[in-house]
Amino acid sequence: MIYLDNAATTRPDPAALARATELYGQTYFNPSARYGGGFAAHSLMEHARQALLCSAADPALFDLVFTSCGTEADNTAVRMAKRGNAVTTAGEHAAVYESFVQLRARGVEPRFAPLREDGSVSPEALLAMVDDATSLVSVVHVNNETGAVNDVAALARAVKKKNPRCIFHSDGVQAFGKLAFRLPAEIDLYSVSAHKIGGLKGTGALFRRKTCSLQPMIYGGGQENGLRSGTENVLGILDFAFAAENTFSRRAEHEARLALLREKMWGVLAGGGFVRISPQGGSPYILTVSCRAARGEVLQRMLYDRGVAVGTGSACSSKKPVSRVLEAIGTYDRAALGGVLRVSFSGETTEEDALRAADLICEAANEYMGKV
Amino acid sequence: MIYLDNAATTRPDPAALARATELYGQTYFNPSARYGGGFAAHSLMEHARQALLCSAADPALFDLVFTSCGTEADNTAVRMAKRGNAVTTAGEHAAVYESFVQLRARGVEPRFAPLREDGSVSPEALLAMVDDATSLVSVVHVNNETGAVNDVAALARAVKKKNPRCIFHSDGVQAFGKLAFRLPAEIDLYSVSAHKIGGLKGTGALFRRKTCSLQPMIYGGGQENGLRSGTENVLGILDFAFAAENTFSRRAEHEARLALLREKMWGVLAGGGFVRISPQGGSPYILTVSCRAARGEVLQRMLYDRGVAVGTGSACSSKKPVSRVLEAIGTYDRAALGGVLRVSFSGETTEEDALRAADLICEAANEYMGKV
Repeated sequence: MIYLDNAATTRPDPAALARATELYGQTYFNPSARYGGGFAAHSLMEHARQALLCSAADPALFDLVFTSCGTEADNTAVRMAKRGNAVTTAGEHAAVYESFVQLRARGVEPRFAPLREDGSVSPEALLAMVDDATSLVSVVHVNNETGAVNDVAALARAVKKKNPRCIFHSDGVQAFGKLAFRLPAEIDLYSVSAHKIGGLKGTGALFRRKTCSLQPMIYGGGQENGLRSGTENVLGILDFAFAAENTFSRRAEHEARLALLREKMWGVLAGGGFVRISPQGGSPYILTVSCRAARGEVLQRMLYDRGVAVGTGSACSSKKPVSRVLEAIGTYDRAALGGVLRVSFSGETTEEDALRAADLICEAANEYMGKV
Repeated sequence: MIYLDNAATTRPDPAALARATELYGQTYFNPSARYGGGFAAHSLMEHARQALLCSAADPALFDLVFTSCGTEADNTAVRMAKRGNAVTTAGEHAAVYESFVQLRARGVEPRFAPLREDGSVSPEALLAMVDDATSLVSVVHVNNETGAVNDVAALARAVKKKNPRCIFHSDGVQAFGKLAFRLPAEIDLYSVSAHKIGGLKGTGALFRRKTCSLQPMIYGGGQENGLRSGTENVLGILDFAFAAENTFSRRAEHEARLALLREKMWGVLAGGGFVRISPQGGSPYILTVSCRAARGEVLQRMLYDRGVAVGTGSACSSKKPVSRVLEAIGTYDRAALGGVLRVSFSGETTEEDALRAADLICEAANEYMGKV
């Protein structure tokens, strides 16, 4: 199996999982228990927290709250919009988008800024929506469907200049461990997820600027400094830190290699008649294309039968017929929207596999169109 | 190490974890992905769901929503109190208790029914608080601090007789896999947790009567039939089902054996001058005692140094000086409340270990009191 659906989820890093499982087997105690074993479990978790925190932020300015997934981190952040209006983009993952839709019932007006052709938000349009009544702005860092990168540092600066009191959140799930990035002081909250970088499903985190007040969504025993109750997923947290350690140690190398690999692969797909949706300057981990003459989900299954796993868009929204985000871009017609394939890489992806997959993708498209 | 803090968390079942890890390593795909691998991951998860569901409920009447922990399941349930008042007990775990405290800000009046001496709720007092304006009632099945069992089936019947429209929830975290119990039709929602029965931290579930409408707390990709968004913790879910399979297959045997073991252990502790807090008819998995002359947390550390891990009450609330729940019983003075030790068993606990621990507990108490 050539696995090229890494934006949906990654194969668990076996070394990280083995290390985490061994440690957890010895230190399975409840991290809230007030004896040696509990302290040891707590200490392991705090080491993991510090390592993850320092991988993308200054620990003097930020802390990190563990959550059960990126979606929970996003929901927790968006709920901090308590009054007036809240501004986001039409290119958000469902976790942010649907949370914004829910804001209406809480008396907060959601505003959705339009996208540019690559799927990034129009900075001018976004800023025009921010006013004195804006309590929160949320902008996805890397668009999970096109790979377009929003300059969230610059956007946060511009937003804070216009309204210094509003909270700036970014969904960093597809950026963390992949792009060169450290959190600037203008970003208050930043969501990440373990299973997009070789960790386990079931663990996410929310980076929080220490001056940003955050309210819990889940109440109980007061874990995570009162910000997220519930016994911590210690195995998932340890595994997240180990997977991140591996990911970050080779981040720059992967980024450079995959940027070249993506273009080589695109060279093959362009020859096969595909339309390119991912921008040149986007995340090197995502190459989204469309075959106007085919249905993406049919191609996807034909490819799976040939031993290649690819996405058709966000796996989380895979029940919808066409992508809300790609539709919001406004330049793709139904035929283009219907034929979307998302090819997404990990540090493990080899050139041989990617180019073999490109050939198989062209072959499947040709067969679909009756050319074979 | 003699581990007797199983009500805080259990040692992960190594066979269940090995089985789940192997399966997950092969089927790490996103369960929402629309190709063979995704379908396989989804199918594994659905098998786990059915197995867990059938272990305690009629699948014709109930379904099951996976959550990240028992606390999240409790929070999701309590949020269904939307108007009027909501009734619970003074003996709830913090996950329910603190969720009830939060109801005030949502315009719902929380009511806390008083406890009987064993820590179970007074049924008369609870029922007296239920009226036409009650939208939800929540009663813990097994009190996590004393082991007292509430007859939640009878309570739910009585509550529904008085107000058929109100939702009845029970926190079953300390009961699931331990007591002989199947969900009656009068209970609408029932919370359980994996890591109390040999599963991993980071997975819980909410049983839901199919006729009970439930609103999500976390929005996004619409996983779990729209009731809980976020990529599912597939490893944790598989492991939960395997651990539950092992637990349920020997449930009756463990219950009978531990009920005898608990009384033998109590025989030793009674001789050591301890006061018994756990009732005779309570869960055989919990024996809570108090040494009036000692501080429970000091005894706990002395015991840990001797190779015995025990609790002092709910690990989740271990930052509080005395137990809110035991204090609410009203019959224990400060000395008794300060000296509490909670000894809690699992199916793995051997008689030899338990009796050795009882001797060590008496020895530590004697040393504390200067008798050695």
